[in-house]
Parts: sequence; C-alpha cells; structure tokens
Amino acid sequence: MGGWVIGVDLGGTKTELGLVSPGDEIAARRRIPTQQAEGPQALVRRIVEAVAGLAAELPPGERVSALGICTPGPVDHRTGALIDPPNLPGLHHTPLRDLLAEALGVPVSLEHDAKAAALGEHRFGAGRGADHMVYIVAGTGVGAAIIAEGRLFRGQHNAAGEIGHMTLDRHGELCTCGARGCVQTYLSGPGIAGRYQKAAGTAFNGTGEDVARLAGAGDPLAARVMQEAGEALGLAVAAMAGMLDVELYVLGGSVAKAGSLVLEPARRTVPQYCVGSVGKRVRIVASTLAEDAAILGCAWQARQLT
Amino acid sequence: MGGWVIGVDLGGTKTELGLVSPGDEIAARRRIPTQQAEGPQALVRRIVEAVAGLAAELPPGERVSALGICTPGPVDHRTGALIDPPNLPGLHHTPLRDLLAEALGVPVSLEHDAKAAALGEHRFGAGRGADHMVYIVAGTGVGAAIIAEGRLFRGQHNAAGEIGHMTLDRHGELCTCGARGCVQTYLSGPGIAGRYQKAAGTAFNGTGEDVARLAGAGDPLAARVMQEAGEALGLAVAAMAGMLDVELYVLGGSVAKAGSLVLEPARRTVPQYCVGSVGKRVRIVASTLAEDAAILGCAWQARQLT
Repeated sequence: MGGWVIGVDLGGTKTELGLVSPGDEIAARRRIPTQQAEGPQALVRRIVEAVAGLAAELPPGERVSALGICTPGPVDHRTGALIDPPNLPGLHHTPLRDLLAEALGVPVSLEHDAKAAALGEHRFGAGRGADHMVYIVAGTGVGAAIIAEGRLFRGQHNAAGEIGHMTLDRHGELCTCGARGCVQTYLSGPGIAGRYQKAAGTAFNGTGEDVARLAGAGDPLAARVMQEAGEALGLAVAAMAGMLDVELYVLGGSVAKAGSLVLEPARRTVPQYCVGSVGKRVRIVASTLAEDAAILGCAWQARQLT
Repeated sequence: MGGWVIGVDLGGTKTELGLVSPGDEIAARRRIPTQQAEGPQALVRRIVEAVAGLAAELPPGERVSALGICTPGPVDHRTGALIDPPNLPGLHHTPLRDLLAEALGVPVSLEHDAKAAALGEHRFGAGRGADHMVYIVAGTGVGAAIIAEGRLFRGQHNAAGEIGHMTLDRHGELCTCGARGCVQTYLSGPGIAGRYQKAAGTAFNGTGEDVARLAGAGDPLAARVMQEAGEALGLAVAAMAGMLDVELYVLGGSVAKAGSLVLEPARRTVPQYCVGSVGKRVRIVASTLAEDAAILGCAWQARQLT
C-alpha cells in the first residue's frame, strides 16, 4: 500500500498525470492532449509514454505499482469502461481500465472525475477527517459526489450526485436541458457568463471567471450575478443537507475560485431553507486541492489495489 | 430469528401494536391512546398491558421474543431515545427503548417512523426484492427514508430523508417554515386542503383526502390542486433520482390514498426534470402495506435482535 502510484485526470481536451509518492505528494507531472479523434489505442499509447517519462523520475530502485484514472461520467467503475460521456465522444464504450492495465502491466482503477476529486478532498484536502461530506464541482456544468460513512455513495449506476439539473425555481431561467431554474443555470461558469450578458444587455464574450473578476472590481451587475450563483449553491446545499443529513460541503471547479463572492451568499442562504437545527450545522468551504484533488483521489484509489 | 415479535407504531394521538408471526403476518392488533400528558412511565405501562393482551393470543408454548417501536423523528437510534419530536412534546428525551426493554424483559429496537415504514415496504411490500428504494410519506408533513444497497441510509444524525422543505419554487407558495415553494406546501394533506381553500375562495374545512374525493367526483379546482400535488411529488422524485441514483419510489401516508390522481402527474413530471436516461428508469408506486408498513418494519428490525 505504500508504493509510488500515478493519478490521471482525463478531460475533454487535456489529460493531467501526477506521480504520487508514498507520502501522497505529487512528485512530478505530465500534461498531454486528449485528442479523442485518434481513438482509444493512440490515447493509451500517449498515456503509456507519459507514464514512462514519470517513471524515469522515480528514486533509484523504485517502480510504479498502480495507476488510477478518472474521466467525465457516466463511467462504469465495476467493468472499468467509459459509457457515453458527452464530452468524450471518441471514447464511448472504451474499456479504458483494461487497456491501460494490459499496456502498463500494473493494476489500474477507473473512476468518475467528480468522485475521484471527492476522494482526494476527503483523504487529503478540505474533507480530511470527516466521515461524511459532499464535494460539489461547479465549472462547465455542476455535479457532486457524496461520501457517507467514509466511502463513496454511488447509487444504482454509479451516477449519484447529479445535482446540475435539480430544480430551484420551476418558473425561473431556461436551462440548456429544456427545464427551468436548474442549479447549473445559475451556478455553472457558462450559466454565470450567460446571466451577466443577459443582465448587461450587451455582447459579453467572457467566462464565469471574468464575471467574478468584474464583481471583485466593483461591477454591481456582476456582483448580483455572483450573489445569485451563491444563492443557488445555498439552495442546492439546503436540499442535500435535508435529504442526506450531511454537514460538510466542499466546493471545487472553476467557480470555486470566486471564493467568498459565491461562498458567502451560499452560507447566508442555507439557514433560510433548512428546517430546525440542520442549517446551523452546515459548513460550505472551498476545495483546498483545486485541480490536484482528482489526481490525488485517483492515486489513492489505485493504491488500494496494491 | 424465527419467533413471534411485536411491532409498535407510536403516533401523536394513538399507538398501534401488531403481534407478528414467524411468517411476518400481523396475527393480532391493539390500539391505545398515546396520551403524552400522563408522562413516559404511564405510556410504558399502557404499552406493557397491550403487549400482555397480545401475548395472550399466542399459540400455546410460544412467547414474544422482541419488540420494535417507531416514533416521529428526530430519534437517536443508537441510544434508543426520542430527541425532540414536535408532535410528542410530552416525550422529549425519553429513553423509550431502555424503559420498554426493562419493563418487558425482551430486546427492544427504536426507529424513526418513516424509516420503519421504509423497512416494512422494502422487506414485505412495494419494495420487495429491490436493493435501492426511497419511501416517501405524505400526510401531515412530507418525509422520506432511503434504502441503499439493501439497508437504511441514515446520514450523520439519523435524519436523512427530510425532503418536506426542499425548495421547488423559490418564488412559490409560502410555507409554514417561512420559506416559499417547499415540497410540503403542495404535497402534504394540510397543503392540499389549504391550496384548495385558497383557490375556491370560500371557507373549506375539509382535509387533503376530501380534496382528493372532490377531484375524483369531477371538481375541476380540486383536480388542479391534486395535479399540482403530483407535480410536486414528481419534482421531488426527480431531484432525488439525480442526487441518489435510485429508481424506485414508494408513496405512503394519507396522500397516497389519492392513487393515480397524484401518481399520474408525478410520473409525467419526472422525465421533464431528469437529464438523460435517469428519468426513464424511475418508477413511482403506491405503498402496498399502508399503515401496516411501520408495524411490519419495526417487527422486522426487532427480529434482528433475537
């Protein structure tokens, strides 16, 4: 259990690899383009090359004992195959775990990316020491992963935590899914950017992070949009606190970089929508590992195989 | 594990007892008033008397081997004490499990009532054979209990499943809790009655069940209120399906008696608010055990102690 492992965070455009020490530190990194168009075999070849590069940086006499990889969902963690992730059309139904295990000759684990990041925060970040926590990732979309009694709550198809389209306001803003008032309409990066553009009434080609920057610089319209994002986070957390009876919520993803601009309104909102003492016990904090959470979570999971 | 046990459903006004056979059938019943004003000792005495009456109906040579009791929450299932259930002010902080065990001389379990009913439906009713299900009780209030991987999902304080004040419409109907658009504003018995009265604009002293009866008899206003109740159920189920990745939802409580008046709009609503294939897999069904679910669930839990 104490050896060197590699954690891999495979995204739609780039794949980040980290060589993780027996002390759970990222000792070396690689970044490669995902380039789905090349097909799964070429991707596996690129990952194997990057792993060889990382292995060359190991201390003398050491070897890589396992690799953990995560991808956008849906992912079947039991068979180790991607199902049909919308952002990875070139890799649908790829048995990525087995392809990598065969190519590398070490045990490999495959996990859903939000769940991997939750494992990372739970073991090494903002959720350290907590038996129960929810990791919320707010970026291009909004998702979550639930840790209960010290382990992942997966649901029937490893899909638990899909909160992006939970309805907060039936008659609210139209969502890309066709419904109204979904969490991600307010809390995702594109949702924040879209709402700012709509409120400003002018062409705005920025991102959610740009809106946060404008809000920080004193733009009142941007501040209102960020406040509404925080309120949406608070409403979602209130619903989860009631349903799951979990107290700690860790926010990751690009929207988490807005910090108190989104966390403060969320914290103010929760008690208004929680009955009884539950609301007082809820804590919402920012991720402490940021992009490293998924790499460290994958590495931790891989280590369990050794 | 195969003996005779007793299940007890303690409510705000009445307490129902059932003598449960080794074949999990309710063989005899008793009903006593809860009368909290008398205090815990008097209540325990009444329960002990009722248990003696049930024991007198046992086949020759048999005895009661355990008793399971459930009450409105919050309940600490580990210490076996009621915490501060709003409907049982006379029994706050009563160590009911230990008082009964001492008085009866058999093992006793104490459970939250919605969770006990969920166990009953899961073992013997609409959830039989399912590894994952959610039991939703809609009556005076709205609550739920989650079964995952074949067992209760409790959360940090045995309070998981509190969906009554989940927000469906931030700008909707005012709830008794002070927030707007909570599930129970639309789906509880008092919520249904109140919304009918408001829509009719006249004094209406009926219950939610009366509104369901009017809807069944062709009253268009009552039909609309029941449809909105069903839509609220559908929205709540859609949120749970995303968050928990559970497919089977069993509706109990007085509102379940409205049957298709509430189930059909709920079933139509779910796919509109679930992304991807999740909505297609969701099933919402009525409880098959009605009031017996909690008694059978308590009895099953008690049997695990023997």
